[in-house]
Amino acid sequence: MRRTESATPAIGVLTAGALDGIGDVAGVSVGHTTLDDGAIQTGVTVIRPHDGDVYCDKVPAAVCVINGFGKSVGLMQIQELGVLETPIGLTNTFGVSAVSEAQIRSAIDANPEIGRSGPTLNPLVLECNDGYLNDLHAFAVTAEHYRSALSKARPEFERGAVGAGRGMSAFDLKGGIGSSSRIVHVSGERFTVGALVLANFGRLAMLSIAGVPIGRLLARRLGDGIPLPDAPERGSIIMLIATDAPLSDRQLGRMARRAAAGLARTGSVYGHGSGDIALAFSTGYTVAHDASRIALPALIADAALDPLFAAAAESVEQAIVDALWQAVPVAGRDSHVRRALRDVVADLETLLRACAPSL
Amino acid sequence: MRRTESATPAIGVLTAGALDGIGDVAGVSVGHTTLDDGAIQTGVTVIRPHDGDVYCDKVPAAVCVINGFGKSVGLMQIQELGVLETPIGLTNTFGVSAVSEAQIRSAIDANPEIGRSGPTLNPLVLECNDGYLNDLHAFAVTAEHYRSALSKARPEFERGAVGAGRGMSAFDLKGGIGSSSRIVHVSGERFTVGALVLANFGRLAMLSIAGVPIGRLLARRLGDGIPLPDAPERGSIIMLIATDAPLSDRQLGRMARRAAAGLARTGSVYGHGSGDIALAFSTGYTVAHDASRIALPALIADAALDPLFAAAAESVEQAIVDALWQAVPVAGRDSHVRRALRDVVADLETLLRACAPSL
Amino acid sequence: MRRTESATPAIGVLTAGALDGIGDVAGVSVGHTTLDDGAIQTGVTVIRPHDGDVYCDKVPAAVCVINGFGKSVGLMQIQELGVLETPIGLTNTFGVSAVSEAQIRSAIDANPEIGRSGPTLNPLVLECNDGYLNDLHAFAVTAEHYRSALSKARPEFERGAVGAGRGMSAFDLKGGIGSSSRIVHVSGERFTVGALVLANFGRLAMLSIAGVPIGRLLARRLGDGIPLPDAPERGSIIMLIATDAPLSDRQLGRMARRAAAGLARTGSVYGHGSGDIALAFSTGYTVAHDASRIALPALIADAALDPLFAAAAESVEQAIVDALWQAVPVAGRDSHVRRALRDVVADLETLLRACAPSL
Amino acid sequence: MRRTESATPAIGVLTAGALDGIGDVAGVSVGHTTLDDGAIQTGVTVIRPHDGDVYCDKVPAAVCVINGFGKSVGLMQIQELGVLETPIGLTNTFGVSAVSEAQIRSAIDANPEIGRSGPTLNPLVLECNDGYLNDLHAFAVTAEHYRSALSKARPEFERGAVGAGRGMSAFDLKGGIGSSSRIVHVSGERFTVGALVLANFGRLAMLSIAGVPIGRLLARRLGDGIPLPDAPERGSIIMLIATDAPLSDRQLGRMARRAAAGLARTGSVYGHGSGDIALAFSTGYTVAHDASRIALPALIADAALDPLFAAAAESVEQAIVDALWQAVPVAGRDSHVRRALRDVVADLETLLRACAPSL
Repeated sequence: MRRTESATPAIGVLTAGALDGIGDVAGVSVGHTTLDDGAIQTGVTVIRPHDGDVYCDKVPAAVCVINGFGKSVGLMQIQELGVLETPIGLTNTFGVSAVSEAQIRSAIDANPEIGRSGPTLNPLVLECNDGYLNDLHAFAVTAEHYRSALSKARPEFERGAVGAGRGMSAFDLKGGIGSSSRIVHVSGERFTVGALVLANFGRLAMLSIAGVPIGRLLARRLGDGIPLPDAPERGSIIMLIATDAPLSDRQLGRMARRAAAGLARTGSVYGHGSGDIALAFSTGYTVAHDASRIALPALIADAALDPLFAAAAESVEQAIVDALWQAVPVAGRDSHVRRALRDVVADLETLLRACAPSL
Repeated sequence: MRRTESATPAIGVLTAGALDGIGDVAGVSVGHTTLDDGAIQTGVTVIRPHDGDVYCDKVPAAVCVINGFGKSVGLMQIQELGVLETPIGLTNTFGVSAVSEAQIRSAIDANPEIGRSGPTLNPLVLECNDGYLNDLHAFAVTAEHYRSALSKARPEFERGAVGAGRGMSAFDLKGGIGSSSRIVHVSGERFTVGALVLANFGRLAMLSIAGVPIGRLLARRLGDGIPLPDAPERGSIIMLIATDAPLSDRQLGRMARRAAAGLARTGSVYGHGSGDIALAFSTGYTVAHDASRIALPALIADAALDPLFAAAAESVEQAIVDALWQAVPVAGRDSHVRRALRDVVADLETLLRACAPSL
Repeated sequence: MRRTESATPAIGVLTAGALDGIGDVAGVSVGHTTLDDGAIQTGVTVIRPHDGDVYCDKVPAAVCVINGFGKSVGLMQIQELGVLETPIGLTNTFGVSAVSEAQIRSAIDANPEIGRSGPTLNPLVLECNDGYLNDLHAFAVTAEHYRSALSKARPEFERGAVGAGRGMSAFDLKGGIGSSSRIVHVSGERFTVGALVLANFGRLAMLSIAGVPIGRLLARRLGDGIPLPDAPERGSIIMLIATDAPLSDRQLGRMARRAAAGLARTGSVYGHGSGDIALAFSTGYTVAHDASRIALPALIADAALDPLFAAAAESVEQAIVDALWQAVPVAGRDSHVRRALRDVVADLETLLRACAPSL
Repeated sequence: MRRTESATPAIGVLTAGALDGIGDVAGVSVGHTTLDDGAIQTGVTVIRPHDGDVYCDKVPAAVCVINGFGKSVGLMQIQELGVLETPIGLTNTFGVSAVSEAQIRSAIDANPEIGRSGPTLNPLVLECNDGYLNDLHAFAVTAEHYRSALSKARPEFERGAVGAGRGMSAFDLKGGIGSSSRIVHVSGERFTVGALVLANFGRLAMLSIAGVPIGRLLARRLGDGIPLPDAPERGSIIMLIATDAPLSDRQLGRMARRAAAGLARTGSVYGHGSGDIALAFSTGYTVAHDASRIALPALIADAALDPLFAAAAESVEQAIVDALWQAVPVAGRDSHVRRALRDVVADLETLLRACAPSL
């Protein structure tokens, strides 16, 4: 249980799962490799949708490109075929090549027919630009970092300035990895929706938490301790949504689109320079690589999806707040520093409760 | 059996069904209302995907907009929900309003809760501009024409200058309704793919039949008996693909996209002014309006779809040739006339066989 | 000036234009026809992007389908060609046919070559389902209602339960027409962004105003005076965004997508049954129907769009609140009643100010 | 002039440029690095849209994903922003990582602010699977191969089994790089359309050249000298279209979609396993990286685009035939061999002329 005294305050109205993390969706696990060495403040995070070989047992998935200023790879084939076939890699923008090649090599190790008697592999690596804290020109991420993160994947995992989140900034503060989960009931059946975000977007004055425009307060309080809010945003956010509900790829696309609602509630307007990408997958069934027929469980009817949509939006909003709340301050290249939200305002929880009594 | 001495020559390499028409897909039927009165040369064609109430038992479907210069209605909701919920209406561009309102009223008659305790209805009407022969300003199409066409739907039906095809032009000749079917085997199982087109596109010099650039020959032969080929094309083509193969809506979208291949082989480059729209649906299962869960049959794996893709392309190509071949000449508004392909060249079949020995 | 004692409270941080309405974008005007007769509670609203003939001088535009459960017509051709060529019609779901035919007839009256020597017309009618208050089965909307609304278009216009908004519901309260505007500066130049919404979505408990989850408070207070929140939502929202900034159709598509952010902040998660459609257009230039070349003013660079994106999101959020705030209660078919937000809570403004001190 | 005795026969009706290659579009140049060493049969091809720094002077571009079974990178951002900002890299599927990292490093060398004070870079690498001839597991492609190809870019360049085309197969024969150009007149002004393809798709029996189903003839003649046509296709085709016509990114998207027509005419139905991707760019203007306004030349009106659409389709068809015609036989890994089309049938040109007299 991660509910400690530093637990991220609960947003919204739905119930969280035991971990309030994407690992509450059975089978999903997350591992990090964190690089913390002077000007190198970056890393890799790997999300495994299930414990098996994802190439052999593919996972239904869909993508929503909210703002396509980004360099993620692997999205096109997911849109065409409705499945993902590797663990999901997250890293910095210039680490995409290394991680995607690592995914290919890992898959070949397990399935040597890839690229020979069989088809090739679709690497899936999503990224944000951590260049404010991290020296992107060092190209520090390697295949070994991917493999290490993969091997450490667990349902419960660290959040904040870890893994791919190590060098990320959000709202002019320290961003990074956040996660959450929500439990919903559809036609009497219980389903879990989990979110994991790599949060690296937004200017301080935009920040809203639980509807409270706390960013404006903070900006007034802090003044020039925080970089000027009129520099262009060069952030991004990756939002992953997992669910055990049996959904088709089209329905997962509808889920992914609801990430935009959660994101907007934290203050984003999907800025020009922000690659805002959502990806949703279901653990409700898999698609065998060699099957000639695909037997599906009974899918949830579209008319019954509203609770899942609400959970998708709320879990993304919660995960973004989580990324801020769990962050620690990080100093990186050229004396750049990002402060942690909780360090900046000791009375944050009090402030929030005053404005949003339902928290 | 429609194989008479006027049978459309067979294109391609796959085997046709018994009717070589969309009615070879079990359950699919087609009806026409034809308006042939001086300057009024138009009509309505209705395609029923099954004999039941399509609102109650919705049909998996998907759309491909190859060139979106068109006024068809109902496509957006199909893309969102992956089903169609009315018979498919075809008519002229200015008849869309009348036919879509007729679809709503028909559905309300059968399901009075529509728009009251239940949701509304998504009319589905696709159109081409028959204004060269038909007086569009007369707004001649009415709700009654839709209902009449619906009531006359049969698996076997007339082609050529009938129904919505009455006033259509293709390749500067008489266009209209064409249909075809192809039989394929996937993993040892037999499936049927049927196509129905409303063909109203193309300039004569572009026409290819079975790969033979017959249009260039005809243009040389006919000279100014045919309108000048540099007037802008204001055509369009609607291509419907039906199959009994159990496919997801995403897979039907992949099928629909292959219509573009069949269309291209007849000479089209998807001209600017041509609304080129494909819609594919499966009769392999239905989605009950009130279901809370959707039980699907085992779907065909994507890796096994190639025979169905080939059948989609070839049946569309065949259906376009069929529309030309089955056409009769029509005279319409302002002394405009479209001649029939077979009247223009008595020796067409001989010409084709000389150039394309495999015909 | 509409700033009276009943003025809608200002949301967000940007400055509104003089009218705080879409008419602040020079050239844009709006007219209503309101039908208020027992079970007939519906109407038509027309938005003119400029005073001229929109068919002759087309307007750059783009669409974002946030949730495609809807029956709007005309969107496909806008996506293909990047222009709209009629005034924008808003009405109820079953009125779309009548209004689109009225648009065609109006355009033919002014340009008789349409559908004869020239191409046809792309009607543009967006809709929501007002069937809770209005008797949809009456098909009450006619061509005359469109023409009347068109003739009354003015930069300043009524909001609330008028025009197409007459029968609409939002958050279990009275919805309808709302509007707003925001002024931004891009590279030192001043631009206006205006929004107009047809708001017909949401359950009471979801409602947020300026970040304050006022819906939960109201739901607690009002109890069963409001319909049960677990009935399915059958709403929708149409969001129009106008700007005088010279933007390409692609850039307008980016603007339209930001409507989703404003919508989310009012509490929406883009519910399954809600057709959530945004359309953005620019008055910065027009595209002549007969031009062989399109001369454009210098477009704003994408990297400079953030202020416009912020304005798009904020003006949509404001317009939704405006629709609620300006509403009057309406009684319709079968004794159905929608109360007005301000009648339900006399102290609403006080409540909001307590929670959101920045208001 | 490349018109030698081995010149690829001219397809279609339009006039070719001087080189009948993409280099006929002024400013466009192409360079190859070819790896030919036993089991290593692969390479890199680079297409420069202009002689300058593409990051500083970005090129309007758009993408059409005909079948998204592919691993190309960089397409998402082009769809969002309508420009490309690097030379275009082509290579094998597992070489994408190396080439995209090479693109980033090259751009940083020239613009050190990338990833520091400025935004990052969008690498653009398109790929096909050459694993039948080439040992993909060797990961033979390196950054140096990209740089070398870039440095050798010229308007006139080799075609066939060179560069990224070295290991590619098409129609069970040797595929690779093909190119072509077409000259058209729009409103009295002369424009050039050029195509370059990386052809790696199709089964022999499908092959059509100039409408002649030559593949069926060849398959009958050759029998088992050619692999069985029921093995799944694992090919792909990348189709690049360049033009000097001033077009918007939306219009370039329309151009790219016409590649599907040219592709279909060679026999493709866009097979399941074939990543069929088209990208169109214009040299008619550039978009400066640091501009706050984008001044465009007068764009061609959409209604005048048909000649350009015809040229796009025909130049792609011609380029595919060129790839086959210019191929030499290649032996690769595990004694795999692909024969060259012209070696297989000495009398090919005679055969074609007999069937397609217009050739």
